[in-house]
Amino acid sequence: MTAATEFNLINKYFSYSTNRNDVVLGVGDDCALLNPPAGKQLAVTVDTLVCGVHFPENTSPEDVAYKSLAVSLSDLAAMGAEPAWATLALTLPNSSEAWLEEFSMSFKKTLHDYGVQLVGGDTTQGPLSITVQLTGFVDAKKTMRRDAAKVGDKIYVTGYLGDAALGLNLLNVFELPDPTIRYASVKKLNRPLAHVGFAQKAVEYCACAIDISDGLIADLGHILKASACGAKIYFDQLPRSKAFHKCAVYLNDLDYKKMLLAGGDDYELCLVIPADNEEALLLLAESMDVLLTHIGVIDNSGELSVINTSGESIELNLSGYEHFAHE
Amino acid sequence: MTAATEFNLINKYFSYSTNRNDVVLGVGDDCALLNPPAGKQLAVTVDTLVCGVHFPENTSPEDVAYKSLAVSLSDLAAMGAEPAWATLALTLPNSSEAWLEEFSMSFKKTLHDYGVQLVGGDTTQGPLSITVQLTGFVDAKKTMRRDAAKVGDKIYVTGYLGDAALGLNLLNVFELPDPTIRYASVKKLNRPLAHVGFAQKAVEYCACAIDISDGLIADLGHILKASACGAKIYFDQLPRSKAFHKCAVYLNDLDYKKMLLAGGDDYELCLVIPADNEEALLLLAESMDVLLTHIGVIDNSGELSVINTSGESIELNLSGYEHFAHE
Repeated sequence: MTAATEFNLINKYFSYSTNRNDVVLGVGDDCALLNPPAGKQLAVTVDTLVCGVHFPENTSPEDVAYKSLAVSLSDLAAMGAEPAWATLALTLPNSSEAWLEEFSMSFKKTLHDYGVQLVGGDTTQGPLSITVQLTGFVDAKKTMRRDAAKVGDKIYVTGYLGDAALGLNLLNVFELPDPTIRYASVKKLNRPLAHVGFAQKAVEYCACAIDISDGLIADLGHILKASACGAKIYFDQLPRSKAFHKCAVYLNDLDYKKMLLAGGDDYELCLVIPADNEEALLLLAESMDVLLTHIGVIDNSGELSVINTSGESIELNLSGYEHFAHE
Repeated sequence: MTAATEFNLINKYFSYSTNRNDVVLGVGDDCALLNPPAGKQLAVTVDTLVCGVHFPENTSPEDVAYKSLAVSLSDLAAMGAEPAWATLALTLPNSSEAWLEEFSMSFKKTLHDYGVQLVGGDTTQGPLSITVQLTGFVDAKKTMRRDAAKVGDKIYVTGYLGDAALGLNLLNVFELPDPTIRYASVKKLNRPLAHVGFAQKAVEYCACAIDISDGLIADLGHILKASACGAKIYFDQLPRSKAFHKCAVYLNDLDYKKMLLAGGDDYELCLVIPADNEEALLLLAESMDVLLTHIGVIDNSGELSVINTSGESIELNLSGYEHFAHE
């Protein structure tokens, strides 16, 4: 689009009012100018959502806007960071005012809900994609990293697993006896919760975490590789929602395991904590209404194995999450 | 692409060695962790280049990589900032190793040339586009902003105008008697110079600047709007390269004016300075081999007019830069 059009779009839809006093200059100059807080480190993450790859083409602009922030908020949560500033690079096939208005309203509301300010952006013409970069603050000595798991540590996850993968399937495939199943799991797909508040407190007890965006197996695998250790996962302890339970009868065994262990887009947190901190973390989670489930243990096997209640290994032939467009 | 593929790509092509000690944790965790310098403000800019919109499809991966950084470096220069950290969101239609290798080498070299470290990124599958966010540092009291022009200030530009627009035309249109013309102007299109070093020193004398990415008229217009003033531009003083002069005979009058006044992608700086600082700035530019040309003056007319040597206004019917795909 022409520069004039771009300028007007940014002015019209993305000049939100300033609500953080560390933003010296926001949207509208060559750069934003920001005052970083003294004594803190910056946590920075960037994620791109491509239409048809990361979300189906018929996803509403509200959901696209929400999710484009939630995936990066979840990365900040995985470090225990406090969200602060966002930039938005928005590529649009055309300048549909209706689409932009809905996107902008939802984006603004989500920013507001998390105390984040949009400080810069770029609007370009092309196939729909959204790149959000978020910056947050962490205390230098209190961050959660992938390389901090130790043998004997307990593995926990927030929320339920597999719901987003289920939601993706329910978009087009199933005839459902109970429409609430579709609602619950599609909501999880389009509106994943970022555990930002919980994570900022969990850093007191936990030095190692990752967000489950690519599926439990793939993401826990990153922790194991970075920390040079192995892990056992107790399959029967993996947390499943009511909707997931209800749908289990429609799924074959492989799909069932695949969704639970390798389904992406859940954006729950996987936390690895010393046994001594278990009780404190569980109390914290309860006080914040966060479901927290013990699912495994870090060991020195050098491998990731999934076992059933009899202690037998469950054979897996999963290569992590594959975005739906390629399945 | 699958998460595994993405992870491998990032590992293989974008895990450059760390060369800044303010990067605590670089590519490879949920977030990068960065130590901002005490007492400085952060300058942040983000730009997306879409294939077929911001660069022709046959542009080499080296040039795409270079330009994706140069456009953001130019934004930092326009604020007088010192470049520090980059993130890269790369959307690729396929994972061509040859393309990635060439892109990566050029990206790495350009980062190195400007002292910037890549601290995070995202690789996704989709139509080719590149979003780069750069963060730099500025002294709180020494920045160049769009809203700081004052009546009586002199308007300067670095380098030559119109060469990139000319280069874009020369890619496909002209039969040229002299091939060096094509080389010079296409180089300006694909390899714009970001005046980062000069700008960091120019902030001593200059409080107002913008980078000319959307054409002189459009970008100077942003300064006039933000500063609530007008300006006169002396058409005959606009700096033209030898290549541009040689090509003038092939251009009709409108194209000639359009390229010079509204041609985008030059990424030169437009600086607005108090008359008292003129000599010091010119000496600085000379010492750094930066061509700096006086092209106009800020006035209280509330309008932007372009005048010839007789002081007559040149009629313009230009709406700023339009990306080539839409012309």
